[in-house]
Amino acid sequence: MTTPIRPAVRKMAGYAPGEQWNDPAVVKLNTNECPYPPSPRVADAVRAALTADNLRKYPQPLGDTFRRAAADVYGIDPDMILPGNGSDDLLTILTRAFVPEGGLVASPTPSYLLYKTLADIQGARFEAVPFAADWQLPDPWPLPDADLTFLPNPNSPSGTLVRLDAVRRLAGQLRGPLVLDEAYADFAEWNGLGLVGAVPNVIVTRSFSKYYALAGVRFGFAVAPAEVVRELNKVKDSYNCDVLSLAAATAAVGDQAYYADVRSRVLATRGRLAVALIDLGFEVTPSQANFVWCRRADRPLKPIADALKERKILVRYMSYPSGDGLRISVGTPIEIEKLLAALREIV
Amino acid sequence: MTTPIRPAVRKMAGYAPGEQWNDPAVVKLNTNECPYPPSPRVADAVRAALTADNLRKYPQPLGDTFRRAAADVYGIDPDMILPGNGSDDLLTILTRAFVPEGGLVASPTPSYLLYKTLADIQGARFEAVPFAADWQLPDPWPLPDADLTFLPNPNSPSGTLVRLDAVRRLAGQLRGPLVLDEAYADFAEWNGLGLVGAVPNVIVTRSFSKYYALAGVRFGFAVAPAEVVRELNKVKDSYNCDVLSLAAATAAVGDQAYYADVRSRVLATRGRLAVALIDLGFEVTPSQANFVWCRRADRPLKPIADALKERKILVRYMSYPSGDGLRISVGTPIEIEKLLAALREIV
Repeated sequence: MTTPIRPAVRKMAGYAPGEQWNDPAVVKLNTNECPYPPSPRVADAVRAALTADNLRKYPQPLGDTFRRAAADVYGIDPDMILPGNGSDDLLTILTRAFVPEGGLVASPTPSYLLYKTLADIQGARFEAVPFAADWQLPDPWPLPDADLTFLPNPNSPSGTLVRLDAVRRLAGQLRGPLVLDEAYADFAEWNGLGLVGAVPNVIVTRSFSKYYALAGVRFGFAVAPAEVVRELNKVKDSYNCDVLSLAAATAAVGDQAYYADVRSRVLATRGRLAVALIDLGFEVTPSQANFVWCRRADRPLKPIADALKERKILVRYMSYPSGDGLRISVGTPIEIEKLLAALREIV
Repeated sequence: MTTPIRPAVRKMAGYAPGEQWNDPAVVKLNTNECPYPPSPRVADAVRAALTADNLRKYPQPLGDTFRRAAADVYGIDPDMILPGNGSDDLLTILTRAFVPEGGLVASPTPSYLLYKTLADIQGARFEAVPFAADWQLPDPWPLPDADLTFLPNPNSPSGTLVRLDAVRRLAGQLRGPLVLDEAYADFAEWNGLGLVGAVPNVIVTRSFSKYYALAGVRFGFAVAPAEVVRELNKVKDSYNCDVLSLAAATAAVGDQAYYADVRSRVLATRGRLAVALIDLGFEVTPSQANFVWCRRADRPLKPIADALKERKILVRYMSYPSGDGLRISVGTPIEIEKLLAALREIV
């Protein structure tokens, strides 16, 4: 078939998500899922939502029940909240709302590869700005005229966090919106939610795939001034979130005590993992996320990732012009013990 | 906030979905949901899918289990199937894949209003071609150069079906792809699934919101040549369908016996509804969908819709340059009795 797919799309390689293996024997430390189950309230809420009427009727177009629950927890106005089918849906909506064909999307690098994919699909240019030393932002920021600037905070793959005064300075230099992609912010010491509204061009996105342990359910939300949310609502699909994921997310956000415990465990394991990797000769970047980024100067990392994979342990090998590294999700203590035992054999 | 939302988006009114009322006393005949519950296998499958691992891990990026199940049922290659988060997601993906900013989207009119919205968001032009007499296609089609042409078949609001030889003729005249939006095809006498591959530029989309009674779950699929699906996969969000909706859809598509019964009931009620409306003085267009389109020359229709709403009966009032009408979903026999009793009072 010779259908005229847009050249911008045809020449794209497409975003390659991390490998998903269904083998339960695999230790999966490559896509930063939460190693613990979601709150038990989630499955209860989904079971309760499985009525014939909920299934056969359209869901709430704006997810109002979730918006009210999240507004309570986060202390913001429900009208500032835009639920999405995963935070990827929100990043897509933001790109379509702000970036014209031929426009410019910017982000620091090394970072989340999806931002370039979203620019490609939109037929826009993408420019990446190298992080300054210690994963900080260059100041002044060299691309003030971008139509949209993504700042993942904490960043992936580094797990590092930019200070809020630096975020404010960046936002003040930009002509367009600054999207703080806070997929990992629940594991960090601070976040930018308080900047929304206070700094006019800041928008925050959150994911339920990490801290809330709901990657399977696809849910996230954006926080923006209410008048921006109204515009974004025009761009999203009318019913972008289904009744079951809305029920799951509403239950999860309402059980903060459960997730505070999950967070403590992940942070404790993260600390032990970092120390053990350093003992094994890795350079480990101090992490504010649920993964660690490690490198080593004495030997290549790809063979290490391959040797782990042979032992059914998946980590994410990443190669950038600035060098390569392994991004390792913080698993359960048992999973991390298996990883470290394997690494002791390999290195 | 003065964020630079794209002018194309800012000036849009946005698509207004049909009203969703949660009041169980409301007779809801305005958004064409199935009046019967989904197959009982759906809730069973969702309950079985509610494991901690399914929830916390990312779902299958391409929905392979669903693709194999649907391929079996529809007798097509799994690689020709693209699952989506509702068929709106698929129409969005198709627009982004084929239509450049400033491009042209076309469809017949009166028809589904979302096509114009999708063109607006993309910054493309939209042109509607009036149906010929009896809701048939003008031949030759006046816009052969559109980047994307949508043909809803059956059409909404008319419920009419274009013959496959006319679809073939239209496809042959077009430079770009022809998307047969078959959201209602499960209720019709024929469909265009067999044209995919046989006619190189035909793509079919299907919805699970009508026949499969799963509007709450958001699910649909597109059928296109495998090499086109590969390109569309680059445009969709990596994990556009969640693990619960995939489980629900896979269970539903596997229970065709249940849905054949649902179809029989809907078609029987549709026939009775049409006859009764004619008896009440309406002109009723013969329907191939799960709704009927009715008009009357002797009095305005908006006051009738309003009077029904006062009685907690929702139908869809629609006004087009060519005239207005009521689109009434085929409900259960009891719901239709309530509607007809109310109409007998009103008209």
